[in-house]
Amino acid sequence: MFARAIRAPLKLARYYSSRGTIFGLSSGSGKCGVAVIRVSGDASSDVVHRKTSSNKLPAARQAVLRRIVHSRTAEMIDRGLVLWFPGPHSFTGEDCVEFHVHGGAAVVSAMYDSLGSIDGVRLAEPGEFTKRAFYAGKMDLTEVEGLADLIEAETEAQRKQALLQASGELSKLYNEMRSRLVRCIANVEAYIDFAEDQDVDDTVLQSVGEDVATLVRDISTHLNDHRRGERLRAGVRTAIIGAPNVGKSSFVNLLSNRKVSIVTNVAGTTRDIIESHHDIGGYPVILADTAGLRASTDDIVEIEGISRAKDYFQLADLLILMIDSEDLQRYLQNGDTFDCFLSHYLTSLGINREALSTAKSMLIVNKCDLLPESFLEPIKKIPNITLLSCHTQAGLEAVLQEITTNLKHLCGNPSKESPNLSQQRHRYHLKQCVDCLEKYQRYVEGQRNPDLAIATQHLRNATRCIGKITGAIETEEILDVIFSTFCIGK
Amino acid sequence: MFARAIRAPLKLARYYSSRGTIFGLSSGSGKCGVAVIRVSGDASSDVVHRKTSSNKLPAARQAVLRRIVHSRTAEMIDRGLVLWFPGPHSFTGEDCVEFHVHGGAAVVSAMYDSLGSIDGVRLAEPGEFTKRAFYAGKMDLTEVEGLADLIEAETEAQRKQALLQASGELSKLYNEMRSRLVRCIANVEAYIDFAEDQDVDDTVLQSVGEDVATLVRDISTHLNDHRRGERLRAGVRTAIIGAPNVGKSSFVNLLSNRKVSIVTNVAGTTRDIIESHHDIGGYPVILADTAGLRASTDDIVEIEGISRAKDYFQLADLLILMIDSEDLQRYLQNGDTFDCFLSHYLTSLGINREALSTAKSMLIVNKCDLLPESFLEPIKKIPNITLLSCHTQAGLEAVLQEITTNLKHLCGNPSKESPNLSQQRHRYHLKQCVDCLEKYQRYVEGQRNPDLAIATQHLRNATRCIGKITGAIETEEILDVIFSTFCIGK
Repeated sequence: MFARAIRAPLKLARYYSSRGTIFGLSSGSGKCGVAVIRVSGDASSDVVHRKTSSNKLPAARQAVLRRIVHSRTAEMIDRGLVLWFPGPHSFTGEDCVEFHVHGGAAVVSAMYDSLGSIDGVRLAEPGEFTKRAFYAGKMDLTEVEGLADLIEAETEAQRKQALLQASGELSKLYNEMRSRLVRCIANVEAYIDFAEDQDVDDTVLQSVGEDVATLVRDISTHLNDHRRGERLRAGVRTAIIGAPNVGKSSFVNLLSNRKVSIVTNVAGTTRDIIESHHDIGGYPVILADTAGLRASTDDIVEIEGISRAKDYFQLADLLILMIDSEDLQRYLQNGDTFDCFLSHYLTSLGINREALSTAKSMLIVNKCDLLPESFLEPIKKIPNITLLSCHTQAGLEAVLQEITTNLKHLCGNPSKESPNLSQQRHRYHLKQCVDCLEKYQRYVEGQRNPDLAIATQHLRNATRCIGKITGAIETEEILDVIFSTFCIGK
Repeated sequence: MFARAIRAPLKLARYYSSRGTIFGLSSGSGKCGVAVIRVSGDASSDVVHRKTSSNKLPAARQAVLRRIVHSRTAEMIDRGLVLWFPGPHSFTGEDCVEFHVHGGAAVVSAMYDSLGSIDGVRLAEPGEFTKRAFYAGKMDLTEVEGLADLIEAETEAQRKQALLQASGELSKLYNEMRSRLVRCIANVEAYIDFAEDQDVDDTVLQSVGEDVATLVRDISTHLNDHRRGERLRAGVRTAIIGAPNVGKSSFVNLLSNRKVSIVTNVAGTTRDIIESHHDIGGYPVILADTAGLRASTDDIVEIEGISRAKDYFQLADLLILMIDSEDLQRYLQNGDTFDCFLSHYLTSLGINREALSTAKSMLIVNKCDLLPESFLEPIKKIPNITLLSCHTQAGLEAVLQEITTNLKHLCGNPSKESPNLSQQRHRYHLKQCVDCLEKYQRYVEGQRNPDLAIATQHLRNATRCIGKITGAIETEEILDVIFSTFCIGK
């Protein structure tokens, strides 16, 4: 498969593994039943011999119970499982061994002490096992990033996105784009070499032009995802806005099940922007409680708070506008429409109505417990609003449902067919790629007799940009460095 | 082997495992490379089928890489290793399976959600895997306790002691005592049954008497260990005492490499007892900084502090008496002996000289940087004292060496030949055992024609006491309860 062919060859893995054998605690910290200590590198088999006082290696991938001893003193450290993974069919591509010992501080520290005392064996640097897997061609850069995200994932949707990426779905997409580009280059080069002869006709160039145009369209569509993947990775920034004392902090505390923000009857209690992290319907949400917005205050701390709140919701992915039910009822009783109320309310908050439309937004009418059921009926009929009482928790289910619907829109549902673009880094290289392709288009279309060598250079640059995403390019550059130190003929 | 024969039979394990299949995270918490989720019970094979979407079980104890899916939706959760441990050759004696997935919150939570949704599978209670291992006869109670200690162990010496216990060295000792007792009982019973005939002569009773006497001696020696094992398990309580401002808090801070106690030039700065935990030479030490002792103070907080300090060092395992070098020098210059100085110093502290001899103690002369080398020479010649400057850290190495020597004496060096008694619980049952044996001795020796049925009852009680340590008795009682519910003939 092409995707594999462009990865670093195993020679590189061998070069890299000559940099020593590494060990580290792969499982979590704290007192626990089992601690997994992983070793990778050429000396792994030697490590097994010394740590089990035996000249025999266990069968590959077979969990065997062994006395695990100190490599210097042969004193027993613990009794545990030993798993031998000979390379290249291991996580790092190198010989690996795992020791499963009891998860106590003294046991792990005795293992570290003992492993570190073996010649050529040292503690791994952060990420070094994965780095070796990358150099061995076991995974590319997007998969490495996916793996890191998978470990960081706090919610279900984050896990799904990271898993798709770690499983290589995103690489598949980028490698497929890259191979389409490589095919274009091959066609243009064939045209250069053979156009003077017969066989290759002008339609080749035309078909390359079409392919490039399709690719520009595809990448642009992938880019034009409203930052869904990045949002899902980092959390959806959600600002709660509204007049003072409308119940914003109560709402945050209700969702948190704890007192994130101080709640009093005094208008202007919250002044800082207080962020809290939530998992709503499997999506990661950063909920920001902000200062209540009002024009008439002399308190300089509150004025600063209002200014920060306004800055914040410019950046928010989702706005939740909170309305006081009694406030709304007064308007409706006067015969005004909801729309009229909303205009007035937003003006009093000092917010443009347009601001609401730039981000996703939803409206919540709070304090519904203060109104009798008969008064709520007309409010219920207004579309796109949700009724809530932070006090009695009535309506909370519906509010969470509505938020989840919005989150789904904002984050999408990561699938095998269209994996999300999840990193700023990918976005940058893809934009650069489109730039190069457009340069190609302009150059070829702008000239009567375009120099096709220059034209292919634009295509090569574009290929390079995509290669940077998966790491194919970085690998080649490293290869260059390595082989430049060899003398010719070697 | 006898030790194994008295353990619970496998039938009990089968009874117990019918109580459902359990799962739990066996490795540590936090974001990490790998999380080990263990499953144990009859439904384990079913769990493997559902979680790997396959009708085939992996080969026993073979690590295989699999897509691990949600058991309800078959949606992929992660790609990871699956290890199948069919019973009875597993940790719990039941069918077990381990899933090694990536150690992120969302991955583990998806695994929990999915496992919990399988019929008959539930989250394990704390310690339930080990409890099942106990019921399956895989380990006895002292081994279970050793395992818990191994995980809790913070220092090398603690690890060694716990490992010996978890490996069954302590059980071996107690089982050996128990089997000697059982042999005594068998001999007495044989005498009761056959004494009237021929074959069995009176020397049998005499030999039992000797065996019992030896056993009493052996158990008493084991008990008379100065609480070495318990101390090593819980930490050696070390009190630092001395006059105000002699440098006790500076010493604690020096050992801690951080400011545990507030240090000022004002006498009486420390009033509370401030405990800090240390690993000195592999031994666990609880170092207690106490109020400086002096008679003349009106400060009621300081008076209370002094009273607490005195209470504390009654309980301490090791006393470190701190002396001010200049103070000592004044005495020596007057021609007084060190012994004379010490008497006077202890009196000023309100401590009996005898108090020093009940616990292990060591003497440190601090602030040696204030004296010129020539003045230190005579002090250096005094036996059993160590010179220190908390200020310049001169002498710290020697002090640590001296403390380690004391700790070795206090904790012993746990070895296979004489494993330490490590728990208050064991001490209690062993004392009860000696009581029963002594009752036997008194009864047999006090009567002209002792009723041997009564005598054996004393021996049986003694056996029972030791059985309680390893859990052999508890197991039998449980068996009684279980089988009493069966009808006769079943």
